[in-house]
Amino acid sequence: MSDFLTSQNEDFSKWYNEIVQKAELADYSPVRGCMVIRPYGYTLWERIRDELDRRFKETGHVNAYFPLFIPMSFLQKEAEHVEGFAPELAVVTHGGGKELEEPLVVRPTSETIIGHMYAKWIQSYRDLPLLINQWANVVRWEMRTRLFLRTTEFLWQEGHTAHATHDEAREETLRMLDVYTDFAVNEAAIPVIPGRKSDAEKFAGAVTSYTIEAMMRDGKALQSGTSHFLGQNFAKAFDIQFLDENNTLQHAWTTSWGVSTRMVGAVVMTHGDDQGLVLPPRLAPIQAVIVPIWRKNRQRAEVLEAAEKLSRRLQGRVRIKLDDREGFSPGWKYNDWEMRGVPLRLEFGPRDIANEQVMVARRDVPGREGKTILPLAGLEETIPALLAEVQAAIYQKALDFRESHTWDVKTAGEFQEAVQHGFARAWWAGDSEDEARLKDETKATIRCIPLEQPGGSGDCFYTGREATEVAIFGRAY
Amino acid sequence: MSDFLTSQNEDFSKWYNEIVQKAELADYSPVRGCMVIRPYGYTLWERIRDELDRRFKETGHVNAYFPLFIPMSFLQKEAEHVEGFAPELAVVTHGGGKELEEPLVVRPTSETIIGHMYAKWIQSYRDLPLLINQWANVVRWEMRTRLFLRTTEFLWQEGHTAHATHDEAREETLRMLDVYTDFAVNEAAIPVIPGRKSDAEKFAGAVTSYTIEAMMRDGKALQSGTSHFLGQNFAKAFDIQFLDENNTLQHAWTTSWGVSTRMVGAVVMTHGDDQGLVLPPRLAPIQAVIVPIWRKNRQRAEVLEAAEKLSRRLQGRVRIKLDDREGFSPGWKYNDWEMRGVPLRLEFGPRDIANEQVMVARRDVPGREGKTILPLAGLEETIPALLAEVQAAIYQKALDFRESHTWDVKTAGEFQEAVQHGFARAWWAGDSEDEARLKDETKATIRCIPLEQPGGSGDCFYTGREATEVAIFGRAY
Repeated sequence: MSDFLTSQNEDFSKWYNEIVQKAELADYSPVRGCMVIRPYGYTLWERIRDELDRRFKETGHVNAYFPLFIPMSFLQKEAEHVEGFAPELAVVTHGGGKELEEPLVVRPTSETIIGHMYAKWIQSYRDLPLLINQWANVVRWEMRTRLFLRTTEFLWQEGHTAHATHDEAREETLRMLDVYTDFAVNEAAIPVIPGRKSDAEKFAGAVTSYTIEAMMRDGKALQSGTSHFLGQNFAKAFDIQFLDENNTLQHAWTTSWGVSTRMVGAVVMTHGDDQGLVLPPRLAPIQAVIVPIWRKNRQRAEVLEAAEKLSRRLQGRVRIKLDDREGFSPGWKYNDWEMRGVPLRLEFGPRDIANEQVMVARRDVPGREGKTILPLAGLEETIPALLAEVQAAIYQKALDFRESHTWDVKTAGEFQEAVQHGFARAWWAGDSEDEARLKDETKATIRCIPLEQPGGSGDCFYTGREATEVAIFGRAY
Repeated sequence: MSDFLTSQNEDFSKWYNEIVQKAELADYSPVRGCMVIRPYGYTLWERIRDELDRRFKETGHVNAYFPLFIPMSFLQKEAEHVEGFAPELAVVTHGGGKELEEPLVVRPTSETIIGHMYAKWIQSYRDLPLLINQWANVVRWEMRTRLFLRTTEFLWQEGHTAHATHDEAREETLRMLDVYTDFAVNEAAIPVIPGRKSDAEKFAGAVTSYTIEAMMRDGKALQSGTSHFLGQNFAKAFDIQFLDENNTLQHAWTTSWGVSTRMVGAVVMTHGDDQGLVLPPRLAPIQAVIVPIWRKNRQRAEVLEAAEKLSRRLQGRVRIKLDDREGFSPGWKYNDWEMRGVPLRLEFGPRDIANEQVMVARRDVPGREGKTILPLAGLEETIPALLAEVQAAIYQKALDFRESHTWDVKTAGEFQEAVQHGFARAWWAGDSEDEARLKDETKATIRCIPLEQPGGSGDCFYTGREATEVAIFGRAY
């Protein structure tokens, strides 16, 4: 396929742009920085959305919808927030043929407008906790854009919750980080490191930001979801107050958390290879494709009929597709579905029919090794079992890759070497200025301070000061 | 409840605004003309979305996502289209702190940007039909807004398809009108009249527009979904061309069709009464609510435990809620859930437990008549069966209402009288000017020319000319 797709080693970035378009996940649009999510990519997003949404509802959240437009004055109510987002805003100045009295911002995130509504809805401790999520589009004017990873408009969910106490809000922040971790690991097969963001990298307006960080196949980091403890910052800016059980007026404690269409990019760059996409079965729009094979034209009808029967048997258990396109050879179809990352390919011809079997090829194991002959009898169980096996295998492969590309470093030299190829893990006692200097020198940043810590203390590799925490460093998308 | 909710007869419009807010379906936002869809209203929308989406997929459509922003020049490529939408546009003039070279329009509908992409994707007859739907927000700068019915921003789905022939595109247009009719009748329990729009009322840029028209409880019409045959208008404006089987370059034939959050308003105004919402069981976020009853505090634990058991038994079969809130009397809860339109209320106290029964009250039949005692045994079947009965009953009630508020009219006087209270049905042979004059005189418009026609001909009630079609007239939202 080398004439068809740039190899990852040759130019990972080029590989990514090519495969996203060739596999028809997304396309460039005529609007600067905005992408079109094509049906195959959108179906992947629908799977991500449904699995996240199920988890949100299981943890007591409900969905709602807030306006796309936010009055400019709202953003200015939280000082850090407006400072962080001002350079990225798209502004509506005209509506219905007239200039607006106050310009409207196209939401870059919705803390402010939701904060305004929460102030109206929350009166008493009985109204708390308020646990709302929104699925929406947001706009951030980005200078350098990449399909799915950084686009001017993107789709996401943003959870916004309000609580009576500091501790409850902190708990919620970490609960949702947990939900994200669970989703990434068990659905997207992406091993992620849940951790805290450094002050330099936290959300504009948050007290503490948490993240799940993933490693892509080029060793770079991708922030794949964030959960923010907002303290009383937004409650104070928007007067979200309630009467507590003692009839005392208190400010609420709020959180926000989000995962976006960037997750599609994470899936592509965590599992893909030089043949194209490798999709985790749990999220794959098509889990198994049947490619019917015939040599002679008189075999055609018999094979197609048997293939249709096979397809019907698996429907409802597996997201199955029968590729009955005319005018394409089986070999061409193999390559096509391989490129599109379909986890299992069922090759089905006259000999298979005669022997009551089917040849199954795993996308994640190339060549002969990935091929198995399965009896037709019991396929309703063996195919789902094999899909579960593939899901586990690609998770393990990604985890092995990350572990073999993560180095414990003690010196600046080791650090430099590590972040060329992957993550550096090191004791850290620097401040924001140290981090900024480190970034200038190495292009690497603190990806997170993992929740899981070794304990004890050690020497900060950069400042030499005593450190009580280990951080993960890398170059990031 | 009269002190609580304005009655429909007193002021229907006020009743509507009050119930939408009191039932927490939606709230006003600080942004002019934009609403907040609250969790209860959004869950109703999710049910609408899921049921429509299922039907779209069953008819071969896939979802995708196109940019929110459209270059102003795109709208100008189709003359009628830009003329129709220009007065309603919201315009982004600044992005990332700079003035844009070309202003971007916030999409009022997406024919133009999708047309541009289709031109890129469609090369050959093999690429057709292209059957794509999008779930999205759109913005139309409205002067007078009403929650759900007419808001500056609203949520909808917009289907956009391209076909090789005129006939296929016409078929698709009518197929989707059929899907909408099926949804309205069988899910929303709204009897709708599928028909053609008059030239004066058709979509800007369409050859023919079709609609499903519903009658609200005040006798006014609500356009509840539209399907447009666009001919080659957009294909020519955006160069959507393909090589046909004879290798000749042809323009494609396109359609578009949409249903919006307005459908929530249709549900409210078709079924609601002076006690509040009446939700069709198929769409109701909560289908049955259990209200536990105890007189003495020592009964509380026993009743709650039995109620929880009952709730668990029905879970998965019915969208059930146990109202175990403290500090509210059963009577207060009855009124509360009645107002929120929950189809069935299960009243459950010590005597019911002893008798292994439950008192079930139907929301759609007020007072004693709507109450039945059901044995606990078999409730997993009897409750779903009763819900189906309620669904059928409220459909029939709405249909009866429409039929008793529709009059065949032969004179201007009869027409005037009819459109005060409901629909007028009449032979029509007028043109757009006649229709405009009629609207000035009576505030009524042609809601549709029903697909189902009596045949033959008659005298147009307005022009006296011979007419071959009957039209439905009404005052509209």
